[in-house]
Amino acid sequence: MRNSDATKAKLLDAARDVIRTKGYAAATVDDICAEAGVSKGSFFHHFASKEQLGIGAIAAFNQMAATVFSTAPYAAEHDPRDRVLGYVDFRASLLAMAIPEFTCLLGTTVQEIYTTHPDLRIACDEGMSAHVAGLTRDLDAAKKIYAPDADWSPESIGYFMQSVLQGAFIFAKAKQSAAVAEDSLSHLRRYLEMLLPKT
Amino acid sequence: MRNSDATKAKLLDAARDVIRTKGYAAATVDDICAEAGVSKGSFFHHFASKEQLGIGAIAAFNQMAATVFSTAPYAAEHDPRDRVLGYVDFRASLLAMAIPEFTCLLGTTVQEIYTTHPDLRIACDEGMSAHVAGLTRDLDAAKKIYAPDADWSPESIGYFMQSVLQGAFIFAKAKQSAAVAEDSLSHLRRYLEMLLPKT
Repeated sequence: MRNSDATKAKLLDAARDVIRTKGYAAATVDDICAEAGVSKGSFFHHFASKEQLGIGAIAAFNQMAATVFSTAPYAAEHDPRDRVLGYVDFRASLLAMAIPEFTCLLGTTVQEIYTTHPDLRIACDEGMSAHVAGLTRDLDAAKKIYAPDADWSPESIGYFMQSVLQGAFIFAKAKQSAAVAEDSLSHLRRYLEMLLPKT
Repeated sequence: MRNSDATKAKLLDAARDVIRTKGYAAATVDDICAEAGVSKGSFFHHFASKEQLGIGAIAAFNQMAATVFSTAPYAAEHDPRDRVLGYVDFRASLLAMAIPEFTCLLGTTVQEIYTTHPDLRIACDEGMSAHVAGLTRDLDAAKKIYAPDADWSPESIGYFMQSVLQGAFIFAKAKQSAAVAEDSLSHLRRYLEMLLPKT
């Protein structure tokens, strides 16, 4: 990696970590530069503004998440129902990490900037929707096998799954514990099992 | 109301509205004073800091929510199952309001301040947990009638309901539309109907 690329990558990682720890507005350029060990001059060589860095950090986060979820063991399951339930179990296993590490950069950011930073909001929406689209593919395949006549749409379940996760992250933050989030993922799994009955 | 009480109430309302619109860190004391039409001197007469105002705004929000939910028509239903499902329907009806009006001051705040402002975090946790306790009472009564032998805990369902709501708010913000939130509340209702079967 060229030096300049390494600096950019450090800033993107630092933005992710500082924003997930204290929120978007509270994360100053100075905070992010200090976390990255990079000068402010160097920051502005790479990014025109904190918002541009935020958009870059979201793109990098999406790419990281796409790799993590596409290479997780559950993604190789043959039965799409196993992939859907395996996704929930995999998410539950991630709750063992520290709170800033398992929570979502996009959900945290859009919570506060949805009226003030339209470009950042769109980046959050596109990233979250692309993740839902991946789930929707598995849900659609599972529905064809296990619930072909059901009246629910696979996409609406994909968004429901993400809503449960985003809400569970909020309770993990409020309680400084992942226990409520674990219980909520268990309920999500139970609902999915009911929607996709094995026979 | 004395003049001083009226000023305090204006600041609490303004804090609620500005924080729900742009987040806690981005909401400056100047923003909140401008929204309230109150001088900064007057602000510091009533509150020692923005954090103290935030804690006061959360207490006022909890009180407002307690009144809204305890006096909503569903709360007078005789059957606790009707109260549980009625709560979800009532929440869905609130989605017709503007996004800053139906989203949650506590969820928005705790999302960003969970490591940086411990007292504020505790206020958010206590407020959200008290709301869940109200739901848990109805869920407990409904379970005794409709699912006495089920292995789920009413409290875990109360938190699950709030997680779905908090996550649905995030998608409403991301998409600038309540449509996904409505779908998620429909799925929540369907799950509750399955857990509390009518016969």
